[in-house]
Order: sequence, then C-alpha cells, then structure tokens
Amino acid sequence: MARELTVSIDAMGGDAGPGVVVTAIARSVLRHPLAKFILHGDEAKLKPLFAKRSKLLDRVSIRHAPDRVSMEERPSIALRRGRNTSMWRAIESVKTKEAEVVLSAGNTGALMAMGMFQLGVLDGIARPALAVILPTRRGQVIVLDVGANVQSDAEQLVDFAVMGEAFARAILNLERPSVGLLNVGSEDVKGNDAVKRAAHILRNVSLPMEFSGFVEGDDIAEGSADVIVTDGFTGNIALKTAEGTARLISGYLRGALRRSFLARMGAVLASGALSALRRKLDPRAFGGGVFLGLNGVVVKAHGSTDALGFASALDMAIDVAEAGTINRIIADHATVVSALSTGAAAS
Amino acid sequence: MARELTVSIDAMGGDAGPGVVVTAIARSVLRHPLAKFILHGDEAKLKPLFAKRSKLLDRVSIRHAPDRVSMEERPSIALRRGRNTSMWRAIESVKTKEAEVVLSAGNTGALMAMGMFQLGVLDGIARPALAVILPTRRGQVIVLDVGANVQSDAEQLVDFAVMGEAFARAILNLERPSVGLLNVGSEDVKGNDAVKRAAHILRNVSLPMEFSGFVEGDDIAEGSADVIVTDGFTGNIALKTAEGTARLISGYLRGALRRSFLARMGAVLASGALSALRRKLDPRAFGGGVFLGLNGVVVKAHGSTDALGFASALDMAIDVAEAGTINRIIADHATVVSALSTGAAAS
Repeated sequence: MARELTVSIDAMGGDAGPGVVVTAIARSVLRHPLAKFILHGDEAKLKPLFAKRSKLLDRVSIRHAPDRVSMEERPSIALRRGRNTSMWRAIESVKTKEAEVVLSAGNTGALMAMGMFQLGVLDGIARPALAVILPTRRGQVIVLDVGANVQSDAEQLVDFAVMGEAFARAILNLERPSVGLLNVGSEDVKGNDAVKRAAHILRNVSLPMEFSGFVEGDDIAEGSADVIVTDGFTGNIALKTAEGTARLISGYLRGALRRSFLARMGAVLASGALSALRRKLDPRAFGGGVFLGLNGVVVKAHGSTDALGFASALDMAIDVAEAGTINRIIADHATVVSALSTGAAAS
Repeated sequence: MARELTVSIDAMGGDAGPGVVVTAIARSVLRHPLAKFILHGDEAKLKPLFAKRSKLLDRVSIRHAPDRVSMEERPSIALRRGRNTSMWRAIESVKTKEAEVVLSAGNTGALMAMGMFQLGVLDGIARPALAVILPTRRGQVIVLDVGANVQSDAEQLVDFAVMGEAFARAILNLERPSVGLLNVGSEDVKGNDAVKRAAHILRNVSLPMEFSGFVEGDDIAEGSADVIVTDGFTGNIALKTAEGTARLISGYLRGALRRSFLARMGAVLASGALSALRRKLDPRAFGGGVFLGLNGVVVKAHGSTDALGFASALDMAIDVAEAGTINRIIADHATVVSALSTGAAAS
C-alpha cells in the first residue's frame, strides 16, 4: 500500500460476530502498515476483543452503534429504521469522507439500499451491480452482476460492462480487458432481447475494452474473458451453482480418498498437494463482492465468513479503494453516454 | 426392459459422426435385449459400419436420408429446407408411431423446432422444456429448462414444474418428488415477478409433488429438491457453469497430483479411487437432455459426445420411453388447468 487509507467496518454484520472482524484486522495491519480502521458496532462487545490486542487501538477507532441490521431483515425496513445500526454508521463514514471504503458481512440487500441512499448512484448509472472475482483456468475473471438486481435491461447490461471493464483495469491491472456477455450460445442470433441489444451497443462504442461478444456459462471457469457481464438473477444463480459444484466435487474427492487402504495411503503421500488444492478451492480466499456504480466504495464479505474470509475481503476493500475504480467508471461511462447521444451506437 | 420398443436415431447428428452411434448401439443391444433401432442417415456411410457387426442388423434397420442438419444452421432454416435430413426423418418415425422415442446428438434448436412442428406440443403447454438429470450430494436432480427457451413467464414455469414432477415420478421412481423454483434467495420476497407468481400458483394447486418453494444455485449440487425449475436462459447458464467448474477442479486436481514426487507416488497408490472419481465426474455418464412437453419423446445427446456418452443417452431414451412420462404429464397438467380455471390458485 502506497498511501494512508481508512477503512470503515460494520463490525456487527455477518453470522460470526465481531470476533472474526477483529482477528481479520489483526492480520490486515501487518499487510497494510498505512491502513486505519473505524469499527462500528456495540462498544460493550467490541472493547473486550481488544483487551489482549491493545496495540491495535493505535490504528483502530471504535464507534458505538446501538443497533444492528439482521440478516433476514427486509432492505426497505432496514433503510427506514436503521439509522442507529452499525451498517448505516459504517457507510456514513464513507459519506463524510472519514473513510475511503466500507466493508460489511451483513445483509446484502440492506447494504445496497443504504449504500444507494447515503452515497448515491453515479450520474447516468441506473443501478449499481455487485461484482466478484473468481478463479479460472487462466487466472481470474470479474463477474457482474451477481445479485444486486433481479432483472436488467440492455442499457443496464451496458453499464455493467463499463463498470466491469473499469474495475478490471483498476484491480487486475489490465490495460484493455476483454469483456463477454453471458448468453445461452455464442452465435449472434442466440439469447433474449436484452443481451442482443446490449451486444449491439457494445460493438459500436469505443471503450478501453475488447468486446468478445457472447460467452457461455462454462466460459466463466475457462477464463475466456477478463470480465463477464450478466443480469443479477442469472449471475447470482451461476455464482452459487459454481460454489455448489465445487463443494460437491470436494466431497467426492474426500470420499474417494477414504474408500480403500491404498487410497488412504496415497492421500497421506499426496497430502501436501491436496492441501494446496484445498486452499485453491477455498471460497474464503476470493474476498467479497464489490458494489460498483455507487458514489463510494462498498465491499460485501460473505455473510457466513470466518476471520480468514473477512481478512481477504478486507484486502480486497483496500485494493479497490486504492485503485481509484470510481473515477475510471465515471470517465468510461461518459464515453458511452456521449457515443449513445451522438447516435454512434443507437441504430 | 420389459417390452419391445423401437428407438429412432438421427445417425448424422453430433460432431463425431455415425461411427459413434453404431458403437453405442452395439453396447445398448446387450443391455436392452428387446430394443430395436431405426437408423436414419447416409446409407453409404452407415452400411460399412455394420460390415463386422452384421448380427446387429437383426435389430437395426437403416433408412437412407440424403441430407443432414449442420450444428450451426439456424433452426428456422433447418425447418424450412430440412425434409430430407436424417433429423427430420428420425423424428418422423415417432410421428408415424414406428418408434417410441427419437435420439439425436445434432443441433438442439433444430431438433426442438422440428420436434414441435412434427409431433406438436401437448395441449395447454405453451412451450416444451429441455430437462437434464444431474448428480448431487444426495443422489440425482432433474433440472429444467436448460435451454429450450430464452425467457419464460410464470405460467411456463408452472408448466415446467408439472412436467419435471411427472418426469421425476416416471424416471426416478419417486412417488411425490420435491420441486424447487430456482431463485436468488429462499425468502418469499426475493426474485423477479415470474418466479414470485409461479411460486404463488404452485403453492395453491394440488399435485403429486412437494413444492419446496425457492431454492438457490448451490441447491442443485446439494440435492435440496428432486426437481429444480428455472427459465431456459438461467438454466442453460447454470448447467454450463457447473460443467465448467467441474472441468476447472479436475484440472486443478491433475495439476496438484503432478507437482511433487510424493504427490505423484500418492496418485499412483490412489489411482483406483481417482479413476472412480473421474468416472463419477465424467459428463458423458449423464446421458442427454429430454424435451418435455412434446407429443412424443425426443432425447438430445451432447453434440460433442463420444460412443460412451451416446450410449448413455440411448439408455436414457429407452428409460424415458418405457416410463410413460408423456401420459403422466398430460394427467398432471389437466389438474393444474382445472385448478386454475376454478380460481383455486388464481388470486
């Protein structure tokens, strides 16, 4: 990390409670010597967690928030009654520019609603999208939207492509990322109206990306594009299907290696390689999701994450804040708007 | 197999050519001693394949078809010009009741279009759906639609649920299969309008199924329901995402077990277990997809399948034909229609 940076954290989000958050910060301070942390939550629960880690308090400030958003709460209700929650206050620290980025493992819908309400959506972007970074055969892929929206029209898909491309340049350090639109076939004639129209627009605007046209579900793991764009309904289901498949196969592998004496012996010999594989498949290593399109950086850790997972989401939050993603989105989106208004891509 | 049954086969579909089809039949005759086969395709190519297997010709009749549908052809064009293709003729054998089921590894869209045109869609069903059977932690799950349609409204999702339930009873021998609707969350408030309305209808009609409400992407591999219903766009992408993830992890595993001397030794000892795992993950073992909702049984094998994959699709075609799936769909669909018309589920 090159410069000072403050992360605002909702310490009461997620299933595991604030202990996980504090352990994650203890890991993160070593990797990010210039980072500071504002921890929002129940002071009575947070303070004791620092009893044996008082040195951390040089870099962590605790802000009491009397309430919290539950995982089941409807976003609209959380938004209405939630001013005293740790989530609201954590976002507020970004709004007041005390912090550059906010991280929460809490209720995704509430985080999105409060983020939109407090930070606002970038000019011209209709809806934010949730982006994740996944491993592929060739490296990594950014997939969005994985659940911020339940349906998206062509213009929104184009916004997602622009935001994904800007995010890929910022966080994966790619000069000209390739961007694919998720579809049921790679031929032009395939798909619903929204993806067809989005493809037409993307082919005709000049952006710092390589538009790869349509890609299919297996192209996510294949790594056929650096960014894969889809609506939040399909993206959420694809992401969770991939997670479920990975768990299924890990279970098969564990079972297979226990079935016979020879298999158990083999597993002992290969144990180093197998633990490396386990780490590679560990969903905790992939950080969290990032809401793109908000006027501020909001990062979501898995609700069921542990300290390792929260620490990797924290790393991601710091990386995203440092990379200046938002300014790139603003600049690239302006290009699309001007191309569309001059009719370059409208026909 | 309990009774005589004739399978009509498009011998020219798929990437691998008719050799694969004949090898698959040679396997299948042993497992299904009462099955007969009508093979549609280029006689000049098919006849030599039986030179060393002349005994098979007791159970296989070859019908010359001068033309074929290519994998890239648009369905509308194939439909218009395709009367002399092996695919058209293969479906025709079901139409004329010479055969109970048709199998093709060819162009999916053309197969669906020709199936709809020649066989017709069941009364009251708006669109057919493509169903597949996938492995789960607990056994198997039927997922539909995986690509027959690019968008579906609530009524179509309800049709898919009815067809999936009837298919599960017929092919998995379940008396009262559980049926889940794929969504972005399990809470009632989640999702788009189509899934919400479909859930409302399914909760209020009396069918031989256990409606489990909403399920998420990871519930496919988890086996949380016997049948998982979704629109063809999402279903196709989920299926291919699962296939891609499985390939990615198999590749990781192969790589891990080559990385060190100990790992390679371990892999040798565990080789029996690892090949069993490979067979378990082999997508060829999962047969093909079945078009439900047509007035005839149409089974699709993977376009890139080999003899093993085609043989397993052939097994599936015979099972589906024997199970009397269509009559169950007709009966259960009548229940839904009458419930809807009396208003039981309409409010």
